Amino acid sequence: MSLARPNARLLSRTNRVFSSQIRTYSAPGDGVIPPAKKKYVPTSGTYPRGFKVGSAHVGVKASNTRFDDLALITSDTPCAAAAVFTKNKFQAAPVTVSRDLLKERGGQGIRAVIVNSGCANAVTGKGGIEDAKSMAKHTDACFTDSPDSPDSPYRSIVMSTGVIGQRLPIDKITSKIPTAFANLGDTHDHWLGTARAICTTDTFPKLMSKTFKLPSSDREYRIAGMTKGAGMIHPNMATLLGIICTDVPVAYFPLRRILASAANKSFNSISIDGDTSTNDTVAILANGAAGGDLIDTKFHSDFESLKQVITDFSIDLAKLVVRDGEGATKFVTIRVTNARSITDARRIASSIARSPLVKTALYGKDANWGRILCATGYSTARNPAVPEETSVSFVPTDGSEELKLLVNGEPEQVDEARAAKILEAEDLEIKVSVSNTPGKDTWFWTCDFSHEYVTINGDYRT
Amino acid sequence: MSLARPNARLLSRTNRVFSSQIRTYSAPGDGVIPPAKKKYVPTSGTYPRGFKVGSAHVGVKASNTRFDDLALITSDTPCAAAAVFTKNKFQAAPVTVSRDLLKERGGQGIRAVIVNSGCANAVTGKGGIEDAKSMAKHTDACFTDSPDSPDSPYRSIVMSTGVIGQRLPIDKITSKIPTAFANLGDTHDHWLGTARAICTTDTFPKLMSKTFKLPSSDREYRIAGMTKGAGMIHPNMATLLGIICTDVPVAYFPLRRILASAANKSFNSISIDGDTSTNDTVAILANGAAGGDLIDTKFHSDFESLKQVITDFSIDLAKLVVRDGEGATKFVTIRVTNARSITDARRIASSIARSPLVKTALYGKDANWGRILCATGYSTARNPAVPEETSVSFVPTDGSEELKLLVNGEPEQVDEARAAKILEAEDLEIKVSVSNTPGKDTWFWTCDFSHEYVTINGDYRT
Repeated sequence: MSLARPNARLLSRTNRVFSSQIRTYSAPGDGVIPPAKKKYVPTSGTYPRGFKVGSAHVGVKASNTRFDDLALITSDTPCAAAAVFTKNKFQAAPVTVSRDLLKERGGQGIRAVIVNSGCANAVTGKGGIEDAKSMAKHTDACFTDSPDSPDSPYRSIVMSTGVIGQRLPIDKITSKIPTAFANLGDTHDHWLGTARAICTTDTFPKLMSKTFKLPSSDREYRIAGMTKGAGMIHPNMATLLGIICTDVPVAYFPLRRILASAANKSFNSISIDGDTSTNDTVAILANGAAGGDLIDTKFHSDFESLKQVITDFSIDLAKLVVRDGEGATKFVTIRVTNARSITDARRIASSIARSPLVKTALYGKDANWGRILCATGYSTARNPAVPEETSVSFVPTDGSEELKLLVNGEPEQVDEARAAKILEAEDLEIKVSVSNTPGKDTWFWTCDFSHEYVTINGDYRT
Repeated sequence: MSLARPNARLLSRTNRVFSSQIRTYSAPGDGVIPPAKKKYVPTSGTYPRGFKVGSAHVGVKASNTRFDDLALITSDTPCAAAAVFTKNKFQAAPVTVSRDLLKERGGQGIRAVIVNSGCANAVTGKGGIEDAKSMAKHTDACFTDSPDSPDSPYRSIVMSTGVIGQRLPIDKITSKIPTAFANLGDTHDHWLGTARAICTTDTFPKLMSKTFKLPSSDREYRIAGMTKGAGMIHPNMATLLGIICTDVPVAYFPLRRILASAANKSFNSISIDGDTSTNDTVAILANGAAGGDLIDTKFHSDFESLKQVITDFSIDLAKLVVRDGEGATKFVTIRVTNARSITDARRIASSIARSPLVKTALYGKDANWGRILCATGYSTARNPAVPEETSVSFVPTDGSEELKLLVNGEPEQVDEARAAKILEAEDLEIKVSVSNTPGKDTWFWTCDFSHEYVTINGDYRT
């Protein structure tokens, strides 16, 4: 443990009693993965070299007596790291602390990510900041190597997810950080258990891994990531945590650039209910353990390829969050084409993805293009859809021909039987072409709005 | 009937068959008003002089074999009229036709408003425009006085509400306009029956009337209004129709100014589900039948008083729409104070009013200020809330002291028993002060998100 930290960081949390206002967003799950979701949980994986992960049971929520709720992701060596954070104006303490430490460190020399679920440490004032720092400090203390300088910034990124407005049981958490450290390992079971420990209302752990090559060599690189989501997901990183690890050697600046671009096309292109949260963070760690040439700038010959790999990987991870949207029964891809700008395309797609009427129609398996058009029409796009050039189709996922609902602003004769068949499937793409002038396209992913969503979010008390 | 209209207006509708794609937003009601809503339906009224109203049964929706679905509001003499329309980019045919005729007439010489429910005549192309014009033409033809000039613009404002993308059964409608005209009258029953005829998924007719005086005289003036709403209501006039009639003598320009201001503070300050529609219109007719001095400019000594009367009246009417939000169990006033601008205050209030997580928490009677804060934090206000100066309270409607949930960014010790009691009531005010600097305030009205909302909108087929 570094003894050189200023005393202010050791301030004990205030004794204010928050127990009377404990809130949870839903009853804790029994840990059983619904049969329909099992296909999204990997049974094996090839994980990046030089990372070890583990978890421990804290009982952050008093009602959680069984499930690990503290997750630790570590690199065997100090590594480069970057993160993107929620844009909510009320940023949680771990967001502030992690952003600051990454900035102070210039994204270098990071050793770990420490995550607790069950309590978001958001809207917790100065005491909450001290708690988040305490998590970083106690995690740092697990590493026996000396930090770069005696009073260098923390080396552990902190994330929290769960209830807002409640202080962390910080002593319980910090006392279990060494347990999580002792539990570290690099097997598939370690990764899956750690992915499970960051979950809140998620019904399944979200973990992916893959191997890839870059143009400059035949070397095999690896990437793995875990994420959690469920409710409150919309662009700008809502109640969503993501941790991506790769053994590619890449420096902070190109890594940060890649993550910003990848997050925009993935985690910021999904919507469950349009709500965005106080906490959320996607971090990437790159330790270079696979060896090879360091990607030190965006002009490196491997930069664009790596960006594509990480973007595609992030999209696949983000889609898992939509698969587990609270109460979701449908997985819907919204594709907006021929917009004047990417921003316009995104605004229109987001407007459709957020519309409760579109989402309840999808739940009701209703080919209601009128609602899709309405949502298109009230988007805040600077260059809106051209009504007499707007077309709407359903694109089935079985590869069969698209079903045209509206062509150039004129309703089509819809084959209702075919529409019903398409809407029976879990997956569906809605394609909206907003003009006949070739332009910008975007993809957005969302789910439907079900009775179950209302139950989960209306009937919250444990 | 004016025979001078160009032939283009008489174009018969295309014979394209749309019957295979008939959609409705919910099962037709059985016309029985739920016991809890009866208190909002007046049993008597004092209606403005010189207006007669009536209705007729068309059966716009084939499934409607019983209920009047054509409403006619007339002035005994040509009157001034103004209207505000949806801002959705896909504007329905009646919106285009009504906007054009008001513009061409300079808001003068209007005789009637003709409204059909059951079909929105939206996204219906050129044929839809002809249908809307046909409704205006056939209504005009009921009046025996000559229009101001042989080929003057229509004198009847047209509104439609209901299903999108389906052509009107225009011959059925126009054949029943004389029936509605024959049914005209000025009794309470006439007004209530007409208010009922404009309803779609509404569970009760929304009608109000009152008398008032203006500063310049002791004369009694009268105002009455009807509105319909239910789902898809959010700022910018979503699936919402409103018709206000007054016997005050007021010219078009001051009338238009008053309506724009009043609509902004009323119909554009409510949200059911955040969706906005293709059709919606609030119109005001002023026939001067009560006599007195003409309010001809905004500098007239009665102008400000009349503006206040019409604004307050519009707010009360708009609140009735929220009372009947699809599946609503709560009526929630959101008051945002100390914002830097009215626009900022409105954006924050709208963000809270639209949040599915806030709305499901209200349904679940959960004092979840965390979700309120989240929605405050992700609003698009240019000058966002100041986190450490933000306070959130519940203001009970029984006049008792407000319940503080968050004060200057710090959570309060919440008396959960009192919170539960406040949340048991149907009515609730959420007060959010976004800074400690005196600033602009706004009010917004919304309802909760219930299982019933999902049922109504997901399980739509008749």
